[in-house]
Parts: sequence; C-alpha cells; structure tokens
Amino acid sequence: MRTRAAVALEAGKPLEIMDVELEGPKAGEVLVEIKATGLCHTDEFTRSGADPEGLFPCILGHEGAGIVIEVGEGVTTLKPGDHVIPLYTPECRECPSCLSGKTNLCTAIRNTQGQGLMPDGTTRFKMLDGTPIYHYMGCSTFANHTVMPEIALAKVRDDAPFDKICYIGCGVTTGIGAVINTAGVEIGATAAVFGLGGIGLNVIQGLRMAGADMIIGVDLNDDKEALGRKFGMTHFVNPSKVDSTVQAIVDLTKRGADQIGGVDYSFDATGNVQVMRDALECSHRGWGVSVIIGVAPAGAEISTRPFQLVTGRVWKGTAFGGAKGRTDVPKFVDWYMDGRIEIDSMITHKLTLDEINHGFDLMHEGKSIRAVVEF
Amino acid sequence: MRTRAAVALEAGKPLEIMDVELEGPKAGEVLVEIKATGLCHTDEFTRSGADPEGLFPCILGHEGAGIVIEVGEGVTTLKPGDHVIPLYTPECRECPSCLSGKTNLCTAIRNTQGQGLMPDGTTRFKMLDGTPIYHYMGCSTFANHTVMPEIALAKVRDDAPFDKICYIGCGVTTGIGAVINTAGVEIGATAAVFGLGGIGLNVIQGLRMAGADMIIGVDLNDDKEALGRKFGMTHFVNPSKVDSTVQAIVDLTKRGADQIGGVDYSFDATGNVQVMRDALECSHRGWGVSVIIGVAPAGAEISTRPFQLVTGRVWKGTAFGGAKGRTDVPKFVDWYMDGRIEIDSMITHKLTLDEINHGFDLMHEGKSIRAVVEF
Repeated sequence: MRTRAAVALEAGKPLEIMDVELEGPKAGEVLVEIKATGLCHTDEFTRSGADPEGLFPCILGHEGAGIVIEVGEGVTTLKPGDHVIPLYTPECRECPSCLSGKTNLCTAIRNTQGQGLMPDGTTRFKMLDGTPIYHYMGCSTFANHTVMPEIALAKVRDDAPFDKICYIGCGVTTGIGAVINTAGVEIGATAAVFGLGGIGLNVIQGLRMAGADMIIGVDLNDDKEALGRKFGMTHFVNPSKVDSTVQAIVDLTKRGADQIGGVDYSFDATGNVQVMRDALECSHRGWGVSVIIGVAPAGAEISTRPFQLVTGRVWKGTAFGGAKGRTDVPKFVDWYMDGRIEIDSMITHKLTLDEINHGFDLMHEGKSIRAVVEF
Repeated sequence: MRTRAAVALEAGKPLEIMDVELEGPKAGEVLVEIKATGLCHTDEFTRSGADPEGLFPCILGHEGAGIVIEVGEGVTTLKPGDHVIPLYTPECRECPSCLSGKTNLCTAIRNTQGQGLMPDGTTRFKMLDGTPIYHYMGCSTFANHTVMPEIALAKVRDDAPFDKICYIGCGVTTGIGAVINTAGVEIGATAAVFGLGGIGLNVIQGLRMAGADMIIGVDLNDDKEALGRKFGMTHFVNPSKVDSTVQAIVDLTKRGADQIGGVDYSFDATGNVQVMRDALECSHRGWGVSVIIGVAPAGAEISTRPFQLVTGRVWKGTAFGGAKGRTDVPKFVDWYMDGRIEIDSMITHKLTLDEINHGFDLMHEGKSIRAVVEF
C-alpha cells in the first residue's frame, strides 16, 4: 500500500513529506494506522546527524498512537480496530531479560531493531523508486501507517484521545517511570530534577504521585519555574544564579541533627554529562540515588571521584522509565483517563504532517514542551 | 600513662617505635589494650603521603582487637575485661544516618574523626615532649593502648583469638559485607572480583557464602589463582593474557537464549579507576551491579559512557562493607568461630611492633595477604 510519511533522506536535512510504499505485515507483525505522534528530542538527535548510529533514509518518530488495521500470521493478542501505542522497547515476555523480572530491556528483536530493520532483517517501507527506507527505533511513527512487531505494541483502551496518549509512548512513561520503576521513590522523599523539559516535567509529576516532600527543579531558564510548580515542583534553582548548583541543593535539604544535606533522589533530564555529575553529587551521602535519563552526545562520558560512590551514593540510569511496555503503558493510559496524570497542558503545539519541520524549530527555540502531529 | 606505639612522624618515612603519653578516657570514651592489629593498604596509603588528608604525627592502624582496661564517665555498654574490636566506622544508633536504616555511615563523630581528634576536639596521645599526636581513623591500633569512643567499639565474644579477629576490623568485613550488605548477592548469581588481595579474597568467600554460581577472579598475578580457588573462585582471568578483560568476562558468562554475557555483580578491590570502569562494563545489561571497594589515588576519577547506566547497570560503592559495626562485627566473629568464615590462612605473617615497618615491605613485595602485629 501507499502511505504518506515524513522521510529523513539524509542527516542534518529537513524531513521530506512524500508518499512511500509500505508492505503489509508479515508473520508476527501488525499494520497500524498512526493517528498522532509526538516529536521528541531523540528524533531530532538522529535527524541532526549527532546520533552515530543513525541510518538514512529512514522514517523517524517513536512516540505515537494509532489503530490496528491488519494483523499478520500468528498474531494472537491484537485484532483490527484495537487502539495501540507503539513501543520502542518491546516486551516479548519470553527472552531472558523479560523473564528475569529485573529489567524492561527486552532482547527479542534488539539486533534487527538497532539496524533499522524488522525482525526478519528487511524493511517494510520503500521509496517509490524501490529504495528501502529504514525503520527507526522499531516504530517509525512519522508515517500515516507503519508495520510493527506484535510484541512492540501496547493495547490500550478505546476511549483515550490519540493526540494525548501518544505522549505516553515516550516522554510521560520515561519521566514517571524513572521515578516509580527505576528510583522507587517513597513517600516523604526529597528529590532534584535537572532540566524542566518534556521529560523533566514528567519526572516532577511522577515525584508528586510518589508523595515526595520536596521537589527541587533545576533549569537555566527562569520561565520554567511557573510550569514546574504547576506539576508539583516545590523549589527552583537556576544554576546561572548560584555559585554552585550542588551546594545550593545541599543547602536547601539540610535536615536533622547532623545537618548533612543532599537529596534522596536526583534525575538528569538534560543529556549533559556535567549535569549528570552534579545530579549525582547533590544526592545524599549514604543513600542518595541518581538516575540518568538524558541521552548524551556521542562519545561523551560521565565522571566523578569514586569517593562519591564509596560514601553511599548510587548511580543508575533508565530507558523508557524502566517500564514494561505492554504491561505498564495501558496502566499509564488509565491513570491519564482517571485524571491522575496530567498531559494536556504539556501538548503545547498541534501540527499537520506537512508542518513537521516547524515542530523541530519550536523545539530548538524552546517554545514547545511537546508538539504533536495529528494525521 | 605511657604506652608503646609505632608513630608516623611525617609522610613517607618509616614508622618510629617509641613510648608515648596516653591520657585516660574522658566521658563516653574507653581505654583499650590492643592485643593484635593488622596492616592494611589504607594505613600505607596514609603513611606514604599519598593520602591528601593525612595528618602527622599520627599513630596509624585501624584493624585491631583488644581488651577494655578502663571506661570513662557515662559509658554503659562496655566494662573492663570486655573483648572489643575498634570501629573506624562507628555506630551511634542515634544520628540521622544510623536511624535511617539505609546506611552504615554514622555521622556522630565524623568531623572530629576526620581531623584526627577525639569527639571533644583534642588528642589523647602526646609525644614525651608534649607534642600532640593525631589519632587515625578514630582507632590508632598501632599502639599497645589506645582510647576510643564507646560508639566505636564492637563488643565480641571472649574466646575468639585476637590475632585472627583483628582482621574482622577491616578486611574481612569490608569484603564479605560488600557482597551481603551492599550488593545483596543472591543464590545462583554470577560475579567478578577484580584484585585478589586481602579484600578481594574476602569478597570471594562472601560470594561463596551467598551461594554464587560463578565467581570469576581477576588479577595480573597468576600466583593468585590457587589462593582464589581455595576461597571459592571458580574461574580466573589474567588481564595481561587476554585482549579485553571485559570481553573475556562477557564471553565466560554468556547464558540463555539471547547470549548476552556479563556478570550479575562485580567488585573492584584494586583502587585503580580504569579497573573500576572495567568492573562496571563487564556487568550484565539490564541489571548488573558494580561495587567499588578500593580507595583510589587522590584526584583520580571514574568515567564511563552514560549509556552503560541507561542500559541498566548500577554503579555503587561500599565503606566497611556496609556493616553496622557494633551490630554486625560480633556476628562476623561468631561466623569465624563457627567455621563459616576462613581467616587463619590469610594471616600470612606475624610481627612484633618493632618489626612493623617490615610488614609494609611485605605488602609492597606482594608477599603477604595480611601481616598482623601482636603485642
């Protein structure tokens, strides 16, 4: 079939909107009509050419929502008409990682997904001249239709609006999941969140849901303060206005007889390795846990003195918020529909597919939290 | 009173054995007759001048065992004749850290201890000319008698031999504690231990106690293999004989359908920051936990790509094996007396106080696991 897509023909160039050929679903695959897709910094990371693993031409996009149109041979858990959210982290429930119960990093289709291919080693998308177009993060939601493995689709309720729940396909789940799955924040905890963008704000609302006492937001842009507070932030630090961000956070959190400051949990949602270090070092001696969420530039490394860890801080990271997609994403959609998760105010811009490049401009200008393309 | 001690008069010089003046215990303090003390790399780190926080003149030593001679005002948990192990990590059971239940890093006397002083801000030791001598790690076990805070002494059973259980004051507890307290290793786990010295061998026996399936020892010295195996090591890697230590460990541990290798737990017992990185990176995607035990040179930093953490590895550290000294050390002594912990074969050399500098020579020559001074 033909469908319409925004194609990244080469690194660093604007996407081109065009008709492409899409082959139907093979065994274990599903054809999905994408109804809405968010634009995430990770798409831009690859589009810009900064991603050393970027493959072109490709169809970007990994934060979508849509409807099942057709299922391939052997597909048993989905049927035409089902509402679904694509998962760039699949959940096969059969590989050693899924069965371990210790990680969400399913390995069933890891190798082919990393090569921009479906599990059989081929692509379903082609240019009209027959040139194969790579898949992206196993999703390629910047197309009106896409084909995905059954294990990479979360079935969600039918009454949830696509233009909002698409955000659960990445940003919402990553931010809230980092709090509840990866960090395991408890009631009464103190926390710092570095970077109040589309991920950081979701970390903040995750912390509010988890019952944190003190939620310190950190951002270079003072305009983010009001927004952060709306989602539950209780304190704000602008690194450009203090001598040391770490010390400012330590000072804010000095409690108890020994007056040792530091947050119980910290989260980096910037992708900046120096910020990741600050996030670790502002966490509490003895038990502070620091979670890296942001994607760093190619080759960038984190560093610290080992003494920071020997004195009890824990450095960890999270991918897709530690969420098991098919299990957890439907629950997140329920939480949104029940009013427990705020999404609407974070969708700051709606675009058509033809306007998609404008969405990246808005991202660079810091004007959007999330721009969503509706088909 | 006068007692005999090995005094570090200045950085980089041999210790000098001499009589020193020791003031009696003040309120909350205890006079202890040291019966035996181990020589640990940390003593040598400070003696050599490599420790930027080293203070001189001081009496080193932090791995001792002895008998209570006299207690100061208000001391209620110890009496003359009690057998004790000095604790460089005290356990006051009242500070926010002790009460948190999340860390062993008691803060009650942290500031003065770091300054080589007793909690009242003075020293108990003096040269015969009246010059104060700094305490070391709150212990100073390289003296026949020492004064310590009550909260920094673990009362242990009377029938345990001082020349063996002194090792529980640091090396044994650090190694075994890293496994059972900090890493929380479970039955059937796979693990790698970097550095088969006095700490690494105790990590190995901790892993055996915890029921690990595969215990990979890593050391540049092939002579360590036999010793490692005696304590429970199942595999040995000599980094000088493989292209990549990380890859060698990954290859040894490939299991399951996805053939992703990596150990569940890794431990650095070298203090080398490049080794700490290897330890992290040889741990399993999704859930590997890497624990730093070694003390790095001043200013040295650990580094890695944040991707290592984002894909599920956890980087942490341990001090005194996460053990709460007054609570856990008596239990370790019981385990030794019950034959569950092996110590005797690790005490490779016995020295008199006059021979203590020879103990550091043995350490440098790699000839000793533990040299113990008996008084």
